[in-house]
Amino acid sequence: MVLWKSLHGLQGDGILSRKPEVELWFEFGSVYSYLAVMRIEKEAEKAGVDIAWKPFLLGPVFQAMGIKDNPMASQKQKREYTLRDVARQCAKYGLKWVEPTVFPRLGLLPLRIALLGAREPWIGSYCRAVMELNYGTSEDINDPQRLSKLMDSIGLPAAQLLEKSREEETKTRLRQQTEAAHAKGIFGAPTLIVGSELFWGNDRLEDALEFAAGRSAN
Amino acid sequence: MVLWKSLHGLQGDGILSRKPEVELWFEFGSVYSYLAVMRIEKEAEKAGVDIAWKPFLLGPVFQAMGIKDNPMASQKQKREYTLRDVARQCAKYGLKWVEPTVFPRLGLLPLRIALLGAREPWIGSYCRAVMELNYGTSEDINDPQRLSKLMDSIGLPAAQLLEKSREEETKTRLRQQTEAAHAKGIFGAPTLIVGSELFWGNDRLEDALEFAAGRSAN
Repeated sequence: MVLWKSLHGLQGDGILSRKPEVELWFEFGSVYSYLAVMRIEKEAEKAGVDIAWKPFLLGPVFQAMGIKDNPMASQKQKREYTLRDVARQCAKYGLKWVEPTVFPRLGLLPLRIALLGAREPWIGSYCRAVMELNYGTSEDINDPQRLSKLMDSIGLPAAQLLEKSREEETKTRLRQQTEAAHAKGIFGAPTLIVGSELFWGNDRLEDALEFAAGRSAN
Repeated sequence: MVLWKSLHGLQGDGILSRKPEVELWFEFGSVYSYLAVMRIEKEAEKAGVDIAWKPFLLGPVFQAMGIKDNPMASQKQKREYTLRDVARQCAKYGLKWVEPTVFPRLGLLPLRIALLGAREPWIGSYCRAVMELNYGTSEDINDPQRLSKLMDSIGLPAAQLLEKSREEETKTRLRQQTEAAHAKGIFGAPTLIVGSELFWGNDRLEDALEFAAGRSAN
């Protein structure tokens, strides 16, 4: 609670805000993260809540939990169901959907860039563009050339960001953020966090925002 | 589709109905089945949909998928989150909740009795009573004496049902229904099925009912 209160109010660019905050822990390879990433800015604005973008790698979190294989890769029934369910959810939310030719797809490089931009005003558009590349047109999101083209298209300094993404410091920061995810009790993506309260999955997006908004009155 | 159309319309007591149907595949040991079992009759009535009650055992389904341990037992993070999430959901839906002293709890005996009563008018009240015993007061739902008292309290012939639950035919039928669950692609509980469409989890209850209701117009 105390931690939350001290973090809350400090926005990315250092401007003091009175809005409550929700952390969005997400992975580009996670298909339910797709739904949450596409929806959150609009829903958070309606709820009067700010977003702290928290890219992390799901694979090492699974490994730390003793899970050897991503269930989406190893459990046929769950994988088939998930792709069907997400197709239905995309229809419900009006989102693009093509069944990905590779699933789950590695998103290490775009996650490193998301980490670099986490407090920048372009983070939302960048994440949505990467997600649409993965699930809207099923392209390789980990390919530097393709990602470079994507960054160009939304006006970002592609060469500079790619270079910075390759620095040891960036790699270390993503590893640290992934360790932090595990330490917080995160076991899947997306996970929304408000204070010490975890909400797992796109299905809890509204609950998390409502909970965050309710705390602002305290 | 054809299968669905031939099943649909035949209710438990053989009276022809024009209502569409949703199958509720559930497990007394599954905590999200608790939410769905408590909510479904009211929601289905609102949606104009009939319910086919499908008790099954989740353990053998996990085994058939190559999953050795129930994640609720083996994954600390997921288990802790789930109990917290269900507590919040119960508050939202106005359902009783005490953290179960044993979780997940074996529900073999009450599932066999649910199978015997699946087409009886008392199935809804019976299932809700067993679920409240597990998650409302945290008692041993697999204990014949406790279950007998529960059946007495809702006017069921306890001795007769207990005797029938011990017959080889009943045991075989539950095994067969569990095999059928796996064959249908079920990998968790609750699962709602409408025709060939699967909806996993209490979070998809409304979607499943809406989908079933929409089909009635066809």
